[in-house]
Amino acid sequence: MIGIYGANGFIGRHLVRRLAESGVVIRAVSRKFDQNFAKSFAQLVEFVEADLRQPLDMASTLQDVDTVVQLVSTSSPGMKNDHAIADIAENVVPHVQFLQSCIRAGVRRYIFISSGGTVYGPGAPVPTPETSQTNPINSHGLTKLVVEKYIQMHGHVDGLEYIILRVANPFGPGQEFRKGQGLIPAILDHWRKDLPVKIFGNGMALRDYLYIDDLIDAIEAAVMLSGQPRLIVNVGSGEVRSVIEVIEAIETATHHKFKREYIEARTTDVDVANLDIAFAKKILKWAPKTKFEDGVRMTVDLRS
Amino acid sequence: MIGIYGANGFIGRHLVRRLAESGVVIRAVSRKFDQNFAKSFAQLVEFVEADLRQPLDMASTLQDVDTVVQLVSTSSPGMKNDHAIADIAENVVPHVQFLQSCIRAGVRRYIFISSGGTVYGPGAPVPTPETSQTNPINSHGLTKLVVEKYIQMHGHVDGLEYIILRVANPFGPGQEFRKGQGLIPAILDHWRKDLPVKIFGNGMALRDYLYIDDLIDAIEAAVMLSGQPRLIVNVGSGEVRSVIEVIEAIETATHHKFKREYIEARTTDVDVANLDIAFAKKILKWAPKTKFEDGVRMTVDLRS
Repeated sequence: MIGIYGANGFIGRHLVRRLAESGVVIRAVSRKFDQNFAKSFAQLVEFVEADLRQPLDMASTLQDVDTVVQLVSTSSPGMKNDHAIADIAENVVPHVQFLQSCIRAGVRRYIFISSGGTVYGPGAPVPTPETSQTNPINSHGLTKLVVEKYIQMHGHVDGLEYIILRVANPFGPGQEFRKGQGLIPAILDHWRKDLPVKIFGNGMALRDYLYIDDLIDAIEAAVMLSGQPRLIVNVGSGEVRSVIEVIEAIETATHHKFKREYIEARTTDVDVANLDIAFAKKILKWAPKTKFEDGVRMTVDLRS
Repeated sequence: MIGIYGANGFIGRHLVRRLAESGVVIRAVSRKFDQNFAKSFAQLVEFVEADLRQPLDMASTLQDVDTVVQLVSTSSPGMKNDHAIADIAENVVPHVQFLQSCIRAGVRRYIFISSGGTVYGPGAPVPTPETSQTNPINSHGLTKLVVEKYIQMHGHVDGLEYIILRVANPFGPGQEFRKGQGLIPAILDHWRKDLPVKIFGNGMALRDYLYIDDLIDAIEAAVMLSGQPRLIVNVGSGEVRSVIEVIEAIETATHHKFKREYIEARTTDVDVANLDIAFAKKILKWAPKTKFEDGVRMTVDLRS
């Protein structure tokens, strides 16, 4: 059985839908489920509510789970570094406890969604291969990296199979606007509220935006991958867009012209996050299929 | 003023002695001080008792401190990985809190003693340069690596100067026997108690043993280094010895023949830890001076 943790989030819901429709046996775990979402898949999926910070509750969800897909994250790249201590307590410690529970429960494979945009930090080669140095400059990226290191330790010591997916900025229908999480939902929120968009620095920061369906393809490939993989794999679009270009693409899709408001750049952001996805193409036999502009249009058209 | 944290430990006492005798103004901080040690330097050094796990107490020790030398560590390479959660709570969290206090207090330079023998993990090139991948397989090495990453983050975001010294296995007079910490004091303890020595695996695990005076030279060079360094530097002897060779060197120095007892190898140990010290020689203008056999003899002769 596949255990999907963080199954009620943006990525989680898309993944549950995809795997359920492919006939995969799933246990979907989340702190809390949207009832409409849970109802619509109640015939196909076992839904369990459990909080990552409650180790015993989490351990009890692992029975018969062969593969864990771990999507839970309580921090986001936009959060300030003075949350560092809280991030360790809320992200690192519960993840490490859960990993230990997985080992005890006999979980075979662990798939972890890490942050391709923040684990490398500045000074990485562009595009950035997986073998690059990892020196994050924000707490979000750092806690992701720390969890990666614990997963690798258990891979070595306990024989856990793992595939760490260092994912670019995912976007698509169903992504909710939450402070600091995702440029595209933030801009769409400002469109709805008819507010000017805020641009950090000069708006030339380059990011890799990955359409959700392409990400789900990659996660599915990781779940199904044969052999005994212990891998770190970048998953991105292979392209970058500036903040200005993203705004322009949304303007085209919405036929709305935004007022722009320039504010000071954050020291915790890198100038460019551009993942080298050659390894993913080779090892997962996967490639992104959705053009950025098409992804933006579908996100606007299918918005809730 | 130089703040030495963990000043009552093996490395700390040697460093306090060296810097005090060189006329450097020091505040020596430790959870608790040996009274004889503190008395003998009371004229030269300010001694303050504070526990790393008490953030406010620690912050209050930072007044007028320009350079921090952070030696505090509560875990050791020999501890099992099921201490992982406690290690995060006791090592990572207080270190990150202390770093934040250092930033607020205006500390200019942070020197951190990391673990050259465990931060790299297996699969690193031999000898291992600082640019190698870091994938520790024990909790001790992992928490050291995590603290390194937070230091680097503050270096980038807050302009903190740092020199992270990835130190090989230090040994020498004054190193106390504590479970899991240091092969040489363990063997000397078994000599005193006339017990057979326990050898993990086949005794061919190779480690880099650094005489304490050479380590103190390197720390002093890091304290005095000009410029605004943000560096990670291996500090080792440049040589390796097997467990069997260490036992033989101690047998020569003590004129005592040990009985050997072979026990199962630990999965959390690497086969070889051999640091490439070319960068330290270049950047710190430093080199180890003490031959291993001489170091062992001095350790035996000067033992307390």
